[in-house]
Amino acid sequence: MHIVAFQGEIGAYSERAAREFFGATWQVTPCRTFRDAFVAVHEGQAHAAIIPIENSLAGSVHQNYDLLLQYHLHITGEIILRISHHVMALPGVQWEQVRRVYSHPQALEQCREFLEQRPELEIIPAYDTAGSAKLVAENNWREAAAIASAQAAEHYGLAILQRGVESNHKNYTRFLVLEKAAAAPAAPGKTSIVFSTPHTPGALFKALAVFALRDINLLKIASRPLHGSPWHYLFYLDFEGTPNESRCEKALAHLGEISELLRVLGAYEKGRVLE
Amino acid sequence: MHIVAFQGEIGAYSERAAREFFGATWQVTPCRTFRDAFVAVHEGQAHAAIIPIENSLAGSVHQNYDLLLQYHLHITGEIILRISHHVMALPGVQWEQVRRVYSHPQALEQCREFLEQRPELEIIPAYDTAGSAKLVAENNWREAAAIASAQAAEHYGLAILQRGVESNHKNYTRFLVLEKAAAAPAAPGKTSIVFSTPHTPGALFKALAVFALRDINLLKIASRPLHGSPWHYLFYLDFEGTPNESRCEKALAHLGEISELLRVLGAYEKGRVLE
Repeated sequence: MHIVAFQGEIGAYSERAAREFFGATWQVTPCRTFRDAFVAVHEGQAHAAIIPIENSLAGSVHQNYDLLLQYHLHITGEIILRISHHVMALPGVQWEQVRRVYSHPQALEQCREFLEQRPELEIIPAYDTAGSAKLVAENNWREAAAIASAQAAEHYGLAILQRGVESNHKNYTRFLVLEKAAAAPAAPGKTSIVFSTPHTPGALFKALAVFALRDINLLKIASRPLHGSPWHYLFYLDFEGTPNESRCEKALAHLGEISELLRVLGAYEKGRVLE
Repeated sequence: MHIVAFQGEIGAYSERAAREFFGATWQVTPCRTFRDAFVAVHEGQAHAAIIPIENSLAGSVHQNYDLLLQYHLHITGEIILRISHHVMALPGVQWEQVRRVYSHPQALEQCREFLEQRPELEIIPAYDTAGSAKLVAENNWREAAAIASAQAAEHYGLAILQRGVESNHKNYTRFLVLEKAAAAPAAPGKTSIVFSTPHTPGALFKALAVFALRDINLLKIASRPLHGSPWHYLFYLDFEGTPNESRCEKALAHLGEISELLRVLGAYEKGRVLE
């Protein structure tokens, strides 16, 4: 049986991404932290990990960019999930009984307009969305609710009081699949890299020139601090195409000439979107 | 009396930044969320807000970039604080009594090497560093410790068991000062802007050209999702110089020609560093 590691409690959005990507024949293993999921693949306890890298409202998951650099795993795939937050409570609990709402701060922020219409509720930030559902269920709290996924409601035996309470429904999370060996993507593919430039004026401009001059489309750029060197940055870049294509191979060789660090994190097929 | 708003409990790093920047004649007002701090200035309950925008290890504080766009406040200054995390407990508590350690997940991650040497401790993520100190103090827990600032230890009457437990001592946070009116910085100054580009190949390359072709040094670039338009981005850029200088004024006019959105968030003097 193949094993895929993910961070969070059962019912987390990552668990759904893992099940959708790998199907029912794979076993999912929850990990306490993102790092634990990387380590599980690195040390061979899991065959793959699935991690969120970016949300269309909240942006990049910084820590996972750092871990991509630290652990030499390969990005071998991606999958995009529409995120829908629901309010849930113990079965039989009515809206009028609810006094407190628990969820992850990011989920609470995404549901702000809904929560502002109910100023009588005490809003309590928690570490995890699925963890909030677990908290309400395990403590048997009848005056509390959680905001989490439909999977979390099902897993912890909670009833959904109100569906889709997020302000912006264009709420998608992009997950990456990580494995020890690189993928061999068929076109159309994309490539993720990380690089750093010398700290000279125009250095980033020159780095982007290697793509612009070859009409290679950039899909994403994110900057991350270079540890030990405050206010210097690493750049994480996704571009269309894979190193199998000559112009992409040449762009990477050109970038290698002018960057201090350059690593291909993975070349993989573009992921499907689950609405 | 002038009032400065900050997010967090008394003893938060932001409070120290506010006191250092404005001095003892200003009154500090804690806010529950970053948004509340923006609103306090926007609605006139505070004369200024101070918010963390970037940490040299953890990176950008995404939410504050989004709030800068949403509320039309001006960045009028910055201050940089070295962050040092301490383990603290009730007075008289010895290391051997401590079973649980509370702190913000980011602080826990920054102290990972220290915590890995003490695998017997249960590590519990909390919403806030100063809030963790408050939790231990208010519950009178003798088997728990918090990781937070020296100011938090002092404010909540806790004793420091071990100082400076962070793995990387090059740990700095940059705070921005926000006011309703723009500043008139003397040189050497810097400018923060936000812009978006058309979704065409080479668009970001062209945007950076307006600075590179004028030898203007970029200090920072961050990308944030454009809400409602998944996988399209806004770019937040800091550059050396202010619009009072002709080449910077021309670069901004040039960028205005090729960007869909462009706003100057503030031009201000470079901040001092508090070690």
